[in-house]
Amino acid sequence: MADGSDLAASRIRLVLSALQTRMGAQVSTVGSVREEHSHGEALDASRLPEAVVFAESTDDVSAVLKLCHEHRVPVVAFGAGTSVEGHVTPPEHAISLDLSRMTEIVQFNPEDLDCRVQAGLTRQGLNAQIRDCGLFFPVDPGGEATLGGMCATRASGTAAVRYGTIKENVLGLTVVLATGEVIRTGGRVRKSSTGYDLTALFIGSEGTLGVITEVQLRLYGLPESVAAAVCQFETVDAAVRTAVEAIQYGIPVARVELADEMQMEACIRYSHLDELRALPTLFFEFAGGPGAVREQVEATEEIARENGGLGFAWADTPEERSRLWKARHDAYWATRALEPGALVISTDCIVPISKLAELILGARDDIAASGMRAAMVGHVGDGNFHTLILAEDNAEGRRRILDLDRKIVGRALAMGGSCSGEHGVGLGKQEFLETEHGAGALRVMRALKMAMDPRGILNPGKLLPEGEVYRG
Amino acid sequence: MADGSDLAASRIRLVLSALQTRMGAQVSTVGSVREEHSHGEALDASRLPEAVVFAESTDDVSAVLKLCHEHRVPVVAFGAGTSVEGHVTPPEHAISLDLSRMTEIVQFNPEDLDCRVQAGLTRQGLNAQIRDCGLFFPVDPGGEATLGGMCATRASGTAAVRYGTIKENVLGLTVVLATGEVIRTGGRVRKSSTGYDLTALFIGSEGTLGVITEVQLRLYGLPESVAAAVCQFETVDAAVRTAVEAIQYGIPVARVELADEMQMEACIRYSHLDELRALPTLFFEFAGGPGAVREQVEATEEIARENGGLGFAWADTPEERSRLWKARHDAYWATRALEPGALVISTDCIVPISKLAELILGARDDIAASGMRAAMVGHVGDGNFHTLILAEDNAEGRRRILDLDRKIVGRALAMGGSCSGEHGVGLGKQEFLETEHGAGALRVMRALKMAMDPRGILNPGKLLPEGEVYRG
Repeated sequence: MADGSDLAASRIRLVLSALQTRMGAQVSTVGSVREEHSHGEALDASRLPEAVVFAESTDDVSAVLKLCHEHRVPVVAFGAGTSVEGHVTPPEHAISLDLSRMTEIVQFNPEDLDCRVQAGLTRQGLNAQIRDCGLFFPVDPGGEATLGGMCATRASGTAAVRYGTIKENVLGLTVVLATGEVIRTGGRVRKSSTGYDLTALFIGSEGTLGVITEVQLRLYGLPESVAAAVCQFETVDAAVRTAVEAIQYGIPVARVELADEMQMEACIRYSHLDELRALPTLFFEFAGGPGAVREQVEATEEIARENGGLGFAWADTPEERSRLWKARHDAYWATRALEPGALVISTDCIVPISKLAELILGARDDIAASGMRAAMVGHVGDGNFHTLILAEDNAEGRRRILDLDRKIVGRALAMGGSCSGEHGVGLGKQEFLETEHGAGALRVMRALKMAMDPRGILNPGKLLPEGEVYRG
Repeated sequence: MADGSDLAASRIRLVLSALQTRMGAQVSTVGSVREEHSHGEALDASRLPEAVVFAESTDDVSAVLKLCHEHRVPVVAFGAGTSVEGHVTPPEHAISLDLSRMTEIVQFNPEDLDCRVQAGLTRQGLNAQIRDCGLFFPVDPGGEATLGGMCATRASGTAAVRYGTIKENVLGLTVVLATGEVIRTGGRVRKSSTGYDLTALFIGSEGTLGVITEVQLRLYGLPESVAAAVCQFETVDAAVRTAVEAIQYGIPVARVELADEMQMEACIRYSHLDELRALPTLFFEFAGGPGAVREQVEATEEIARENGGLGFAWADTPEERSRLWKARHDAYWATRALEPGALVISTDCIVPISKLAELILGARDDIAASGMRAAMVGHVGDGNFHTLILAEDNAEGRRRILDLDRKIVGRALAMGGSCSGEHGVGLGKQEFLETEHGAGALRVMRALKMAMDPRGILNPGKLLPEGEVYRG
């Protein structure tokens, strides 16, 4: 074991020296840079990467992987570091490959409603550049994530209920394989029935099958008319029922988000939403032609009224709308601010929408029984929600939070749900995968991993728990 | 070679005898049954399967594959036989595994807008059973295909412009692997970020990675209001521009289909559309709330008018609408009826929509230069169209058609398109795959095939041209 570790250390020295020769200042071994690259937002650092390489092109990524492949050095791709499931936590003697400098729009095709971007560009960065053309990219995970990272974790967020997740909005990729070979997947067309869907294979693969360096994205015209409103309820159950019935009724809401009373208390304080009360709340957005929006609003208000909603408060100006949605997106930070210094972990699970009210009420029982405080916020139109659980910031606090999370996930899985709607597996969710997918499906996943990365250099230890490999 | 063939013959005898013992009358070696299972709609039979096994359950499929795996006997899954690219053409000494008896709705969850069906159920069969609940499954490839077959070929059709293709509308699958092992992929939730996307891997894999036996589908509420119309144009160019501008403008048309003058001549004669002229024509459908439909119609009529459209003729009753769309869906048969006894081959390619007019005009030049007659019909909202080419029904006629097809596909690929929007690869499109995807991506696809089916028993010879395998 000591020998293996010595060997790994000497290998990485070799690779680093070659990279420094080739890439100079793009390679950093500075402590603070390595520290920044040792964790995502969940701050779950266990060790530092030996070095951080800042790629500036697909060729750079290819050169790094070729060397690391030759010398069997692990590589962890890094975007904006917004992961909350330990995706970017480095294993021993690993290199962190940072793509955040790759922010070009490589190609912009407004007439086809698509563009190609480098993986390090953020959604916000893209949208700021194309807004003047009347276009936008809708997938919105809340944080300032890179588009490559969003692909790698199969991200979604508040707009998925209308526009789908990242996987429905990516037409193709450039991917660097474990060997350093560069391939393109998919293309620019809206659909194709030629060949295995490699694009979908890499989306959600968390850097374990290849490193995504470019993304071909679908774009959408900015809607002619947008309306946003909040509606408060006496009970979480009534709020959830309203959201679920709107979806069942087929209303194409642009967004519908739930915040429970504790989350609202945090948001009101953090984002100065003084006009609202600490009650279960739905945040709505409607978009389309003015006539379509009017119809959606009327139908939704009717459903809310029948469920005891306390009336719609409209955000009439773009500024008001931004303020409201910023408050929603800052929910995590608002909850952290409730108890500065406390540990906050965000859970993530999803069920078929008809089970959502039951799951949320069950989860609230679990929270009450745990003695911890927790806020709930969710993409209720998809059946997806997060619990932001607070505990003392130590090992015992972490253990207590994870125990509570296990209970909630257990409920979701028993209802035919998934242990993560959008945060991914990373290190945090591996224990649930076999229950969710079955041992056979995991064996197949391991066979795919073996086919793509038999040396195990690509983000080793993430996504797939160890186990048997399918042999056809 | 002879020895190999003798060995293969003796292996299949062994398997057949075991299957007959186990499954009795579900195994047929009757000539007419084997003939029916030797080709799809393109009638491209080269040989008969040795036997046809009619599976009635996932267990049946598992038993067949287990035996065939053990004895290395090739298996070709068969649904409704509507393939036009040779997907179901058997290799030597193969078994055709017919799933068309598996037509159950296994689970129906109207409150979650989803259901689980056996792979042999057709879209029409499903929709007839759920219509009374106000729900429908939108993916509509035109023919009476099975839902399993639609998954296997990544089908789409006229409604994809609004609802997406089959891949956006399947939540999960039951798949029998080469070894006979049964796995489930995906689930019931709307989105999940846990694990490799096995569902997407099997969709479009044309029976080469596993046999799909159950499909979890998304359902939609029947729209409150539907309007259908045709608009005729003096030129194909004007018709295409109208469709493309409607998409670019963001109008959520439910369907928009093009038929050129020759196709219209065929449709008018075959479907008695006597109110129409043999001119380039767009078929439109709009769906949603009444206000939304009104907005879509007004905006589209305006665009058509600006492009010289000759006015919208509305189908006012459900019967009128059905008649119109049946005529559109019967385009292939209408073209065949133009010259009974002629060979008709349907081509299929797709480009980014901004290139569509250029491609169609170029293809018309190619058709004129070929001296053959050809009708065009297309899902122009996606950039996808088919050319139905007529020639004498012999080897020379086939060669001439395929030469013309190559020219058209060549144009599409040069514009960043795909050689098949929805028909799949089968045997017919393999020659184009390397140009479309690149040698590296094909090597990766072969590595996946090797991982899933190293013995090569699953629909061998389909989809992937032979070549190098990626080695990580």
